[in-house]
Amino acid sequence: MKENAVIAEEAALAPETVSEAFEQVVRGRRSVRKFLEEPVPEPVIEKCLELAVLAPNSSNLQPWEFHWVRTPQMKAVIAEACMGQSAATTASDLIVVVARTGTWRAHAKRMIADWPGGNPPKIVRDYYGRLAPFMYTQGILSVIGHGKRVLTMAVGLFRAMPREPVSLGDMKVWATKSTALACENIMLAARAYGYDTCPMEGFDSARVKRALKLPGDALIPMIISVGKAAPDGIYGPQFRFSTNEFVKRY
Amino acid sequence: MKENAVIAEEAALAPETVSEAFEQVVRGRRSVRKFLEEPVPEPVIEKCLELAVLAPNSSNLQPWEFHWVRTPQMKAVIAEACMGQSAATTASDLIVVVARTGTWRAHAKRMIADWPGGNPPKIVRDYYGRLAPFMYTQGILSVIGHGKRVLTMAVGLFRAMPREPVSLGDMKVWATKSTALACENIMLAARAYGYDTCPMEGFDSARVKRALKLPGDALIPMIISVGKAAPDGIYGPQFRFSTNEFVKRY
Repeated sequence: MKENAVIAEEAALAPETVSEAFEQVVRGRRSVRKFLEEPVPEPVIEKCLELAVLAPNSSNLQPWEFHWVRTPQMKAVIAEACMGQSAATTASDLIVVVARTGTWRAHAKRMIADWPGGNPPKIVRDYYGRLAPFMYTQGILSVIGHGKRVLTMAVGLFRAMPREPVSLGDMKVWATKSTALACENIMLAARAYGYDTCPMEGFDSARVKRALKLPGDALIPMIISVGKAAPDGIYGPQFRFSTNEFVKRY
Repeated sequence: MKENAVIAEEAALAPETVSEAFEQVVRGRRSVRKFLEEPVPEPVIEKCLELAVLAPNSSNLQPWEFHWVRTPQMKAVIAEACMGQSAATTASDLIVVVARTGTWRAHAKRMIADWPGGNPPKIVRDYYGRLAPFMYTQGILSVIGHGKRVLTMAVGLFRAMPREPVSLGDMKVWATKSTALACENIMLAARAYGYDTCPMEGFDSARVKRALKLPGDALIPMIISVGKAAPDGIYGPQFRFSTNEFVKRY
């Protein structure tokens, strides 16, 4: 297996070119709410998904899934669940991004079983075999989580220790967080390849889950539509409150 | 106000250069757990934060905050709350990323008051004045949220409608999601400028909140350390399960 860092080094562009291009991608990404009829080439979506999973994620437990909807039939079903908004109905592709709170246990086992080169060091076996199950098991109605919360608060009086996740609700936050990092990679990658996206939260998650037969532990942080922006696809100038309002320095 | 899209166009690099550079950034980003003593220039961090807030976010309500820790005193406090892990103790800068579940109301008012050019259209006034408060108000112990859940389930039998957020827990997921998108911009931007990061979840949130005097509605999705990677700062090859396992096609 060739290391990604090595691949990057071999392909190396000049540093200023890289930072300039990156800024162009970030500034060029806008939420596009109307797309041209032009379909996005499949390899572009494949590339977006390939780069999506290179996002950092919690303990490398990869709690994400990407349900890539391209057939007209299923697109119509999902677009309707998106309340028929134009960002969905005019899109070439829809990516229903799913965060799973229940796959970490199987993935932790595989982090040991599939370790590159086999035979993971003891620290890895301990982490995925013992620490991860301790951290992520919450029990029915979070009963184990509540126990951990009490323990954590008691020990935490005397020394620093991680406080979360200690409930099923915390697990939703946990899975959503890593999955959102991957979402940003998808949206930026699409822009880098000359296409546009819209992250949608306004959808009927119950209908989408039913249509895609998602399991009970699945959350849908967002549905990302992908396409080529229509000339009137951006609804206004980008507008943020001043960065200084959100930045505190110490 | 100059539109970002215009700035991007003026600076335009060739498409292949942009996509190649972007891929180089994504592949080059690794979680670095040990940094050289070299400090990161302040303008680099400023640029990372400037690009962070260009991430898409829910209804543009910008539920994020970035607590940028650079002084040795406060860095020591936060690094200790990170259990003294080397990714924290050796970092040049620490960015404590905060998601707020309670700022949406003030921000919704400001989306009307600060609308670019003044005088927002009726659809904007209705959205931030009426729909957003309906969607995001959950009440004490989520009592309003529970009511909305029942209403949503009843109406949802007949037509598609958004199901979340309907609890204070959902609001945590909501705020975390947008904030994580900004986090990915920070980490990729740092790499684009030749620096490295580590997103940390292993920290004592109670101690960090106390040190930074964070309000009660603040969550800390992650603390991002920033620095120049030490030669032994990456602990192993990047390892993901096969992309095909996470991608389902329709």
